[in-house]
Amino acid sequence: MSAPLITLTTDFGRGSPYVAAMKGALLTVNSDVHLVDLSHSLPPQDLRACSYFLRSAIPYFPAGTLHVVVVDPGVGTDRALLCVELKNQRLLTPDNGCWTEWARFWPQPPKVWKLTEKQYWRAEVSNTFHARDILAPVAGHLSLGLPPDKLGLPVISWVELALPKHSLKNDALVGEVLSVDSFGNLITNLPADVYLNCLQRIKAVVVDGQPVKIAQVRTYGDAAFGTLVILVSSGDTVEIAEAHGNAAKRLQAGVGSSVKLLLVPPV
Amino acid sequence: MSAPLITLTTDFGRGSPYVAAMKGALLTVNSDVHLVDLSHSLPPQDLRACSYFLRSAIPYFPAGTLHVVVVDPGVGTDRALLCVELKNQRLLTPDNGCWTEWARFWPQPPKVWKLTEKQYWRAEVSNTFHARDILAPVAGHLSLGLPPDKLGLPVISWVELALPKHSLKNDALVGEVLSVDSFGNLITNLPADVYLNCLQRIKAVVVDGQPVKIAQVRTYGDAAFGTLVILVSSGDTVEIAEAHGNAAKRLQAGVGSSVKLLLVPPV
Amino acid sequence: MSAPLITLTTDFGRGSPYVAAMKGALLTVNSDVHLVDLSHSLPPQDLRACSYFLRSAIPYFPAGTLHVVVVDPGVGTDRALLCVELKNQRLLTPDNGCWTEWARFWPQPPKVWKLTEKQYWRAEVSNTFHARDILAPVAGHLSLGLPPDKLGLPVISWVELALPKHSLKNDALVGEVLSVDSFGNLITNLPADVYLNCLQRIKAVVVDGQPVKIAQVRTYGDAAFGTLVILVSSGDTVEIAEAHGNAAKRLQAGVGSSVKLLLVPPV
Repeated sequence: MSAPLITLTTDFGRGSPYVAAMKGALLTVNSDVHLVDLSHSLPPQDLRACSYFLRSAIPYFPAGTLHVVVVDPGVGTDRALLCVELKNQRLLTPDNGCWTEWARFWPQPPKVWKLTEKQYWRAEVSNTFHARDILAPVAGHLSLGLPPDKLGLPVISWVELALPKHSLKNDALVGEVLSVDSFGNLITNLPADVYLNCLQRIKAVVVDGQPVKIAQVRTYGDAAFGTLVILVSSGDTVEIAEAHGNAAKRLQAGVGSSVKLLLVPPV
Repeated sequence: MSAPLITLTTDFGRGSPYVAAMKGALLTVNSDVHLVDLSHSLPPQDLRACSYFLRSAIPYFPAGTLHVVVVDPGVGTDRALLCVELKNQRLLTPDNGCWTEWARFWPQPPKVWKLTEKQYWRAEVSNTFHARDILAPVAGHLSLGLPPDKLGLPVISWVELALPKHSLKNDALVGEVLSVDSFGNLITNLPADVYLNCLQRIKAVVVDGQPVKIAQVRTYGDAAFGTLVILVSSGDTVEIAEAHGNAAKRLQAGVGSSVKLLLVPPV
Repeated sequence: MSAPLITLTTDFGRGSPYVAAMKGALLTVNSDVHLVDLSHSLPPQDLRACSYFLRSAIPYFPAGTLHVVVVDPGVGTDRALLCVELKNQRLLTPDNGCWTEWARFWPQPPKVWKLTEKQYWRAEVSNTFHARDILAPVAGHLSLGLPPDKLGLPVISWVELALPKHSLKNDALVGEVLSVDSFGNLITNLPADVYLNCLQRIKAVVVDGQPVKIAQVRTYGDAAFGTLVILVSSGDTVEIAEAHGNAAKRLQAGVGSSVKLLLVPPV
């Protein structure tokens, strides 16, 4: 039987000892786990970036995975810590809404518990590092088979965080950039199906108010080096890229940049 | 039975093949180990940063953990390589003092061996990469159950490296910044217990010679956005932060910056 | 029996969800694997950097290792995806030549298959993320024991990519910088054996056309702080470094910089 799968996602950065201490605290409870780093380089305290990250990553994990997710500007205040169960996966995370954009995709409601049972925490809990002192040991106990309802009482409300939504009008499909990847590709919130439906009607693409000359393609390599392209991303939204280049630099665009597709009105 | 736990900490950086080659050399001796990356982004050749990192991370790991730690400006010279045993954990590291600040916290003396038995090394040893050619295979052999006294002779002296200490005077508690985390929080060497004892007597906080307006808090979220705060860090020292901001940027401060708490003299 | 060893090497960067999604897709097929990150910070779309990385890392891994390597500027075009078998190790990678510099070192020819059997892929394959949708699940199936010849037909030709070669003349040994590590060391393509053969005849070292004052050493610590040194690297090529410093910054040199050793002609 394989070791329980636990993923780690934080904004702790790559040089600090926080990631190490959190791993140690978890492994002290159960060293027979399969630890997988997702990222420790989320933008500091940026819940929207965390929300986009989780929506893009969690759906690909198998049933039984436990995700520990820590972007926690409210650490040490009275914000709750949660155990969330949905689609046979579990998350341990501060109650800050980072997971609700992911949960939105599933018809079932999640089961959620508030972590209050201190016997599963480290004996001493600091005010500024609940990842090490609460979430990590609780992850260890869950991986040993502890049922989530031992961690605290179920709750039926929590912080909700939604990513900005697109709007479709007669003459325009309007959205914004949710993420810029390491290639400089601009990942927007324009849904692939909506985009494909109005593909024949696109008159112009406008980024941050500036019209851009751009080619509609299936993939980057369909265009010549240096061409700006618009395509369906691997996350099923619209993406703007430069073939073998960096669209973010080229367009001076980033997270939050507006993306507007001007449309010929339907007949 | 779970696989032996081995952690890796280096200053090799994230893009180089050195981390990969070291992992390969270890796994070639024993592939049935539980490898955990702590960090490969320690500041290059910075033993003080390494010392702070280890002190902050190792105490959270379970008995039986083997830590391979490589910040090694003296590679290939006659500096020794050591196997250190303390508190049921082991370290493999160059003899540069990076571990002695951690060891200082424990009353027991460590057991230390000097690595000299070449049958546990790679057949060819380069002059510039002992992590791959000596430490990694030795870690593999230890994880297979080899007793440390097979690696070489015990030694009773080694390089000591101490982090700078605070000083407490009648009218001031004086220390410095040991580390800046990814949030820009300034982690000092002022001990929490000393700070808490003189909390009522603090007249002013002076960073790098400049008085700063600052709020005493329990955690970041206790103050309004943008407020400078002083608090006890998760490592039980004094920390200076900006609520939802970056104190290092705000104060233009960094590792080595002086931090002085001016005190009302005791009656 | 230990879990199958699978390494991951990409240019996805450390903050994006791509690495996470790829890991999830692999673990969904087989969660009982030993996942090892080699690097996710290769320079974006830089096949030469990837080639250098693989040549420097793969030889240290044990028989049976499966390497998933993704630097894929041609994703979604008609470039093939390959399974390569050589020296009892396997690679899954786009057909872009990134592995051929490594393969050059072995007398045996590799066995290579083109991935065409879609039953081992994710049901939906995006045009821009074959790492997640094809390579990751195929890695999972291989780790479960699927023979490579089930993945597609064998092929006998593929893209070849060679790193630039040195040239040895009567009066000069000429090469270039292949890589700069995190210490600022300049790793060249001048072979150690060729260098050692002409060691007594070196009159001058010229980097990017500028003669540099440099000491011939065995290792960094053999010279005083701040001295430029030339030595044999851990990858058996010539390396230029600054003792306890950063040669790349000092010399304003980088990947592609020319390195010329002026020689006294042989008698």
